[in-house]
Amino acid sequence: MPEALYIRRLAVLGVGLIGGSLARALRRADACGHIVGCGRRREHLQRAVALGVIDEGVEDPARAVQGADMVVLAVPLGAMAGILARIAPQLAADAVVTDAGSAKAAVIEAARRALGPHFRRFVPGHPIAGTEHSGVEASFAELFQGHRVILTPVPETEREATARVAALWRACGAQVVEMDAARHDRLLAATSHLPHLLAYTLVDSLAAMDDRADLFQYAAGGFRDFTRIASSDPVMWRDICLANREAILAMLDRYTHALQALRAAVAAGDGDALLELFARAKAARDQAVQEGGAAPASPEGS
Amino acid sequence: MPEALYIRRLAVLGVGLIGGSLARALRRADACGHIVGCGRRREHLQRAVALGVIDEGVEDPARAVQGADMVVLAVPLGAMAGILARIAPQLAADAVVTDAGSAKAAVIEAARRALGPHFRRFVPGHPIAGTEHSGVEASFAELFQGHRVILTPVPETEREATARVAALWRACGAQVVEMDAARHDRLLAATSHLPHLLAYTLVDSLAAMDDRADLFQYAAGGFRDFTRIASSDPVMWRDICLANREAILAMLDRYTHALQALRAAVAAGDGDALLELFARAKAARDQAVQEGGAAPASPEGS
Repeated sequence: MPEALYIRRLAVLGVGLIGGSLARALRRADACGHIVGCGRRREHLQRAVALGVIDEGVEDPARAVQGADMVVLAVPLGAMAGILARIAPQLAADAVVTDAGSAKAAVIEAARRALGPHFRRFVPGHPIAGTEHSGVEASFAELFQGHRVILTPVPETEREATARVAALWRACGAQVVEMDAARHDRLLAATSHLPHLLAYTLVDSLAAMDDRADLFQYAAGGFRDFTRIASSDPVMWRDICLANREAILAMLDRYTHALQALRAAVAAGDGDALLELFARAKAARDQAVQEGGAAPASPEGS
Repeated sequence: MPEALYIRRLAVLGVGLIGGSLARALRRADACGHIVGCGRRREHLQRAVALGVIDEGVEDPARAVQGADMVVLAVPLGAMAGILARIAPQLAADAVVTDAGSAKAAVIEAARRALGPHFRRFVPGHPIAGTEHSGVEASFAELFQGHRVILTPVPETEREATARVAALWRACGAQVVEMDAARHDRLLAATSHLPHLLAYTLVDSLAAMDDRADLFQYAAGGFRDFTRIASSDPVMWRDICLANREAILAMLDRYTHALQALRAAVAAGDGDALLELFARAKAARDQAVQEGGAAPASPEGS
């Protein structure tokens, strides 16, 4: 590591795909000492200890963060506010707190309300990585390798805290970028939240049809890839919809408008308009992939 | 081969991904003698000969089918009617004619009009296989291995002709099923045509935004998979929209309706409705993949 990151005691709240992979990656990078994992289910924590992902499992978030110099919230967005309120009184003075939520403005507001003076040491973050699988069993140390992590510090955020969180993600092999939360939320609504909602809606539309068995039987590889993201965790996506509502609605409206234009071209049998649209989209997609933007390996972001 | 298929002289009209892969697969299976490829561009045919995909390249369809006992049309749907009219007077009496078009009712009508008495030996077909790449360079003998080919014979179609086309596709490693054209067109509109249109529309919506460079840069793997099918051949997809218009419009309307319901749930912050929808879609998708229906290897169908 270029930066001298060492985490004495790491508290990972939520030991699922993201939290588990983070713990594995930091361990592998020799970037931390003791790792405390926190979750609501004892069996789950025991499994995480047995897998060597965490050193110790604790069910109470307030107890989990005691003495930790780095606290990472990797829980669904809907659980953030409650957990922030629980841990606030127990945070060590020097503790840096960060999160991995897929919508940032909502988490920042929750943290501002819950953390009081400690809000200065809260660094909002979002690793653009994941798979459609969930749980600690699906976690792996390489999940963040080569992927982007977006940090969205606010003016109050201490630079030293942001630097520590950036170093944490770099130790996991990620590429760290900073932007403001509103821009993050808009970007993610367009490139991740909207595609997930479109895929969920497609699968649900087909599943509601009389010949659903037939439909799924004849669906080909393109359909499989297209709908892979509809296997993602439903709770996580409910929470994303609630937390990033405005940006998502704006994208849904923009999309519906475009779909209506396409429908009109199909209905009119307007081959020229259709060809122009498809050629333009193909060119944009091919260019995006060529430039590497949309091309990290199979894991998806949320 | 269980069936004693031997094609004396095969005419492949359109030596692209599908036509080229078919020629390669039949050659590898020792299922045919001379292969004549037909296409509009001489350089393209020369390349196909140099690659060993065809024995001979001919630019004129009427000449290409002379003496052939099996004629396969692997051209965009929009070119079918014209080519059928061109070849009709030159077909040998015993020649079986088939196609690989992604919409069947429209091709059947075109064949009925063009072929006259030879229509009895026309077997409408559709291999559910493909990739987002086009052209003879992208063709490979294994493309159809383990994939379904749907044949949609009509009452007039001679059983012996259908049996020969079924044997042809089995020799390529495909699994052959029969159904009526209307059912094929509805199934494909749902599982292939609609997903492609949704992906094209997504990419085009994003490309039209001010921060398109940013958007594509931060798009993750899920987006890449989701939009891969938007790299498919624009001409082919224009033709599919024109040829399968009614079924596609019905699916677009069904989808738009579902998307409006999702929008309403997001706007209302209705977490229960969102969770129910996502959980239902995830269950349907996971079940479909488990049952293997949506899970042939990476190539896509159209």
